[in-house]
Amino acid sequence: MKINRGFLQLNDRYLFSRIARKVQEYRGEHPGQEVLNLGIGDWTLPLGPAVLTAMERAVMELGSAETFRGYGEEQGYAFLRQAVCRYYAAKGVELAESEVFIGDGAKSDMGNILDLFAPESTVLIPDPVYPAYLDTNIMAGRSVKFLAGSRENRFLPLPPADLRADIVYICSPNNPTGSVYSREQLKEWVAWALAQEAIILFDSAYEAYIQDPDLPTSIYQIPGAQQCAIEFCSLSKTAGFTGVRCGYTVVPHGLVRDGISLNELWLRRQTTKFNGVSYITQRGAEAALSERGLQESRASISTYMANARVIAETLRDLGFWFTGGENAPYIWLQCPQGMSSWEFFDLLLHNCGLVGTPGSGFGRCGEGFFRLTAFARREDISRAMERLRSRY
Amino acid sequence: MKINRGFLQLNDRYLFSRIARKVQEYRGEHPGQEVLNLGIGDWTLPLGPAVLTAMERAVMELGSAETFRGYGEEQGYAFLRQAVCRYYAAKGVELAESEVFIGDGAKSDMGNILDLFAPESTVLIPDPVYPAYLDTNIMAGRSVKFLAGSRENRFLPLPPADLRADIVYICSPNNPTGSVYSREQLKEWVAWALAQEAIILFDSAYEAYIQDPDLPTSIYQIPGAQQCAIEFCSLSKTAGFTGVRCGYTVVPHGLVRDGISLNELWLRRQTTKFNGVSYITQRGAEAALSERGLQESRASISTYMANARVIAETLRDLGFWFTGGENAPYIWLQCPQGMSSWEFFDLLLHNCGLVGTPGSGFGRCGEGFFRLTAFARREDISRAMERLRSRY
Repeated sequence: MKINRGFLQLNDRYLFSRIARKVQEYRGEHPGQEVLNLGIGDWTLPLGPAVLTAMERAVMELGSAETFRGYGEEQGYAFLRQAVCRYYAAKGVELAESEVFIGDGAKSDMGNILDLFAPESTVLIPDPVYPAYLDTNIMAGRSVKFLAGSRENRFLPLPPADLRADIVYICSPNNPTGSVYSREQLKEWVAWALAQEAIILFDSAYEAYIQDPDLPTSIYQIPGAQQCAIEFCSLSKTAGFTGVRCGYTVVPHGLVRDGISLNELWLRRQTTKFNGVSYITQRGAEAALSERGLQESRASISTYMANARVIAETLRDLGFWFTGGENAPYIWLQCPQGMSSWEFFDLLLHNCGLVGTPGSGFGRCGEGFFRLTAFARREDISRAMERLRSRY
Repeated sequence: MKINRGFLQLNDRYLFSRIARKVQEYRGEHPGQEVLNLGIGDWTLPLGPAVLTAMERAVMELGSAETFRGYGEEQGYAFLRQAVCRYYAAKGVELAESEVFIGDGAKSDMGNILDLFAPESTVLIPDPVYPAYLDTNIMAGRSVKFLAGSRENRFLPLPPADLRADIVYICSPNNPTGSVYSREQLKEWVAWALAQEAIILFDSAYEAYIQDPDLPTSIYQIPGAQQCAIEFCSLSKTAGFTGVRCGYTVVPHGLVRDGISLNELWLRRQTTKFNGVSYITQRGAEAALSERGLQESRASISTYMANARVIAETLRDLGFWFTGGENAPYIWLQCPQGMSSWEFFDLLLHNCGLVGTPGSGFGRCGEGFFRLTAFARREDISRAMERLRSRY
């Protein structure tokens, strides 16, 4: 039995495990010290009543023979796919129910979608970016090209005219940089993809953080995108579902390659290798997308965005260069005095008891940069910023 | 962009979709007729109080800032992995917590585990068997050999001495045949796998239905299996979690190939392409594996096994040859008078308004056989058997 050699090409340790280990070591050495975590992008506020009530009701339904539900459709209950369609309709995007697939989160779907593509496909990945894009392709033994983000392009690289690739990842609002592509910039990407029949894998996990009404919150707001893009989103960052697990993936019927509908391929993949999302979760997600649920989520997101403003003000006062924090929960700063990302990580941890994420963990072009997140309690954010002002 | 050609090798329609279409057509033509479904293996009884209470409490925890949970470990919460270890300890199998991976169901994990193996691996699949084993391997473009089940071997094929393969699937109690391998038979499989360093993918989804204390309920009850087998199980058929979605996969530390730990590979796969199971589900699963939860599940399983006895008696009276129904919720019968599986399906549907599953849907050797399941209400089972006695 031979193992898949792609796994041997992976770097040894996943970014967040290395951070966790360093924090654990620091805690061991400084037992009394409080550590403030602005590192992992994890929701912290409680779920709102709309979602809770719906999930409690769903649990009760499973306790009675008349309302018990066993297997649902692998691609999700119609009630939830319709709710997603209404959510898109509100942003001016018309989708058919059969174009929406409910999954257990964008991370799973973005990894599993690769099943559909030929092993020899060439993949284009922005650098820096969420590490799973790269790792999942290395596992599959694919050839990967990088698209350099930099201070100059504000970490929003555009396609060079001569660049060829089969698949391109776009994450906007971006994790880790917090940058957001404008409508004009996304038009360039769509035109590029259509010209060479490439597929855009569009990660819109943070679309709910966009405050500027001129910025696109879905790739399908760009004409032509339904012929070249798959969009992934989840309720993790939209409605606090990081522990409840629900995402959705849109594969338009217009997306056809080699004469084959990618919607049909993904349906086949999911019906064969997936068995649907918890009924309780799906009822919670339906409630999260209701008017009341959206209101409750918007209140939480406002809290996080206020946190982001506190961070941004501090960085501005201290003279840091940074992006993000206006339409995204992430702030991406340049490390001072030419420090490397891990040097700055160690300095923040040891001088301020403050945890962030080294930019180099997101790719080579992230070296010398650093990510802070707004997902924390306000008092922790405030204390973290006080420490930064006084001690770093 | 080229698609994965493996998908083009798949048969056109998945078994259960074809059944659903035929039933829909029949209903359209016979609007007044009640159709009794003994086709799909889906749980029908409500969840018990132990599980419900745990899930309600988990929902409430998510509604308060103090007890809110975001991302958990991808491989599952320690409380649930420990509960699985205790469940195995009760059957005489010692596992480390880190050998247990919590997932959203055996179907997902059994599909996704294939990521670990080299594309050129040769796969051995019993025929007949649960169709996803074959389809997932065809998607990956792997070379598949079949191992013929028959009336003669009671659909429990053993490894011929000269047979070579890298991966073998074993499903015991078997879906669809309801046959269960004895300890001696599994010893043969383990010896075969160890001799050629093959991997056994052991699907124990129906282990809770085994009534005979001499039959193994885990491959790890066979010495040597921790060096050659991965075991998949779920709470779908153990505790009615078909709609709640929770499974577990055991990858022992002793399982090493090419000098590489498969446990580490699977951990890497899951941390990169999966984000864990709903916290609510995991609390429900923990409760399902508690003493009270197990008691409640055993009561439900007893109901289904009593159903199975009603079916078995009827078939015996009518002179059918069949396997299963004693230690599994499935009864696998030979179609009468040399009929094909789909001919018998049509006959049962049209003469009795009764839906079962054509054996040919599970592989070539399933042709001429037919599956009935015990997952239905007692009164439906009784009415179905009356119709079978009087009308078929």
